[in-house]
Order: sequence, then C-alpha cells, then structure tokens
Amino acid sequence: MIKVILFDTFGTIVDWRSSIGRECEDIALSKGLSNFDGDGFARAWRAGYAPGMARVTAGKEPFVSIDFIHRQRLDEILPDFGLAMLTEDERSHLNLAWHRLTPWPDSLPGLSRIKTKFMISPLSNGSLTLLATMAKRAGLPWDFIFSSDMHRAFKPDPAVYQNAIRLLNLEPDNIMMAAAHNADLEAARNEGMQTAYINRPTEYGIDQKADFAATSDWNFITSSVEDLADQLGCAP
Amino acid sequence: MIKVILFDTFGTIVDWRSSIGRECEDIALSKGLSNFDGDGFARAWRAGYAPGMARVTAGKEPFVSIDFIHRQRLDEILPDFGLAMLTEDERSHLNLAWHRLTPWPDSLPGLSRIKTKFMISPLSNGSLTLLATMAKRAGLPWDFIFSSDMHRAFKPDPAVYQNAIRLLNLEPDNIMMAAAHNADLEAARNEGMQTAYINRPTEYGIDQKADFAATSDWNFITSSVEDLADQLGCAP
Repeated sequence: MIKVILFDTFGTIVDWRSSIGRECEDIALSKGLSNFDGDGFARAWRAGYAPGMARVTAGKEPFVSIDFIHRQRLDEILPDFGLAMLTEDERSHLNLAWHRLTPWPDSLPGLSRIKTKFMISPLSNGSLTLLATMAKRAGLPWDFIFSSDMHRAFKPDPAVYQNAIRLLNLEPDNIMMAAAHNADLEAARNEGMQTAYINRPTEYGIDQKADFAATSDWNFITSSVEDLADQLGCAP
Repeated sequence: MIKVILFDTFGTIVDWRSSIGRECEDIALSKGLSNFDGDGFARAWRAGYAPGMARVTAGKEPFVSIDFIHRQRLDEILPDFGLAMLTEDERSHLNLAWHRLTPWPDSLPGLSRIKTKFMISPLSNGSLTLLATMAKRAGLPWDFIFSSDMHRAFKPDPAVYQNAIRLLNLEPDNIMMAAAHNADLEAARNEGMQTAYINRPTEYGIDQKADFAATSDWNFITSSVEDLADQLGCAP
C-alpha cells in the first residue's frame, strides 16, 4: 500500500528550460542584447548541474548547496553569452531564477488530486529555500519538503533515498518515487520503493539524450501528473 | 527583516491536553471505564515528554523519535489508569493520538494571514510523520516542515536552532522563533534569532508551573497567533 509519493522536481514537476530561458532573455534584452538564445543559455547552465553534483557524490568536494553549484556554472557561462558585464547583484538575482521555475501545466491539477489520497513531497536535489520558494510562488501543494541539504547528498546517491525512508519511518514499499528520469527510479527501486515514470520527452529540448520513454517495468508508467492521478484512482 | 517564522507546535499551535484527553476518554469508555480522568491521563502522558528528550540531549540515550518516547511513557502509565488491557494494536493507535492534535482556535486563521507575508514552518520536537499528519489533518498551512528527526536532536539543544539556520541559509536575525515557552525563545535568541512569545497560560491546566507570561523582552509579546498576525501587520 502506497502512503507517500515523492516527486522529482526539476523536469518532472517544473519546466526549467522555458522558465530559465525566459528570465535570461529578459535580462539580456535589458542589457541591449536582442536575439539572445535563451534556450541555449538554459541548456548550457543546466549542463553544469549533473557534473557539479557528481563531484560531491564522488567525494571530490564536500557537500555544497545546489544554489552554489548553479552559481559556479552561471559565472562560467556568462562570458560565452555576452553577459560578462552582469554585476554581483544581477548575478545573485539571476541565480535565483531556479527558485522561480514554472510547473508543467498538468502538475498543479495532478498534485492537488493526488494529495487527497497520499502524502506528497518533493525528493529533489534542490535546496530547502529553492524548493520552498518555488512551492510558495507556484502553489505546489506539498505536505512537506525533502531537500538535498537535509540529506547532505544528491540523487542518485543511495543515501538520499535511505534517509527519506528513515525519516518517513515506513516500509520502503509504502513509498513511491515519481520521476521523469529512469535513473532516479532505478535508484529508488534499489532501495525497495515503488516507482512511477512521468514522461517528459521535451525536458532538455534539442539536448535530450535519454528518458524519451520508460525503460523498465515501473509500477506506473504515465504521460503526466494528471495521468498518474487517473491511474491512482484520485477523483478529478 | 524577518523572512521566516518558525513555530513551536505542542502547546503553541495545538492544544495537546484536550485532544489527548478526549481520545483517551473515548477508548476508556469503549473498555467500560466511565468517569475516566482524560485530563489527568493527558497530563501524566505529557509528563514523560521532557524527561525522555532530556535523556537524549544529555547523551544518555541515542536519538530516538518522539513517537518512541511517547510510546514508552504510554506503556508506563496505562496500568495506573486501569488500561493495562489495551492490546498492541490499540496502544499503537492511541500513541498516534499525538498525530491528531487539534489547533487552538486562533492558530489556523493566524497562520493563514502570516503565511501571506512570511515563510512559515514548525520548529518542533515532533517527528516528520507526526507533524505532516497533523498538518494535513488540521489544515495547518506550513510552507515546509522541520522535524526533530531531521536534526536528530530535541529543543532546546542549540544544534536544532543551528541546523535550522544552516538549512535556511539566512542570517539568524532574518528568522523568528514563535513559542509559548520562554525557554524555547531563550535558546533561539542565544543563536541570534528574533523571538515572538504567544501566551498559552492554560496549556498544562492544573499542572502549569511556568509560562503564564513573557519573562523577557521578546521582539513580540502576543496573546495568540492572530494577535501575532496583527502585530506583524498581516491583513485580516
């Protein structure tokens, strides 16, 4: 019996690519740069995300907040996009664009329905302030929030899933991980959790290399959070 | 500038004494015990709370969930109240009465107003499942939840306040602790947090020995969560 459903956030619940692209285009325009490639900027920024976390997971760097990893990568790529002139305040503000991501259109209606039958929380690599600000701004109706800085580890490190199971004080199969990323579900299944795949084949746009479809027999295979609500029998 | 307000929960937001008393009277009646002293039972149960946590804080016992401390004390006092016949299932269910506590009448309206201007979360000695279940059931509109099992320590251990500050990634004086207990506020002020006293002089009933009034010059001194909302300038 499933009691708690944990959701991956970046890509699964929120569409980071269009949110980040839009904010970057606005700031570029304010600096006199027209025809700015917001989508390319978003994809380049995101490309620093997995390597930054992997250095922590491999023990090459101590745990740092995802906000720090975002900022390092932002400073790296700004010159390539003609934005080296951004001040410290502008960089700080832009870095928090990751706290202002917009949900996919099905996320809010789907989560609201799922919440009537299950406890729901993110299990995300975001920081607490990122996830709490995003939820408050977008109206994501989480019952509570698990953040990477609570676990001091990043998915798919098994420590994250193990710590969530410990804090929930449940059998692993009373918990379901829902994600648009097969590797996330694989790691959750390795710890005994149930799994739900939510297909987001356009998450990375022209950079998408994987996760065009479920690659295993996950407990639920869905096309959206609303589809998951349907399959779970949550009333519309 | 205050950005986040952390609330003590037991006694400050929820009225544990009447909630626990009511559940115990119901179960006693179902066992044929009429004229059962539900209030006395609630007070006796609660009397094991601080000593149980103090053993952990003093390092005499490893960290355990508050649910475990509640259960130990429950088993201790059941015979004194003629309830030694309760089965394991009945004890487990009764122990979760602490997950079903009812808010004081001003808590929901006050928190809803405060939430429009600030991030709000419990900073409680409750476990995550206790606090999340209580919030879902009662409609407490937390933005996120800090639980003792995330910190692996109980208030007023400085580690709890320090860990909250670290996770929020804010200056301590951007955070305010709100509580009905002067000692909790003292510990928060020692870490640099702002403080709000919420008077609950009937929390312990005839066992109340302290906290009849503010004993220091806290940043806010209030009579209810709604009074705090008023003093913070949150629109009704």
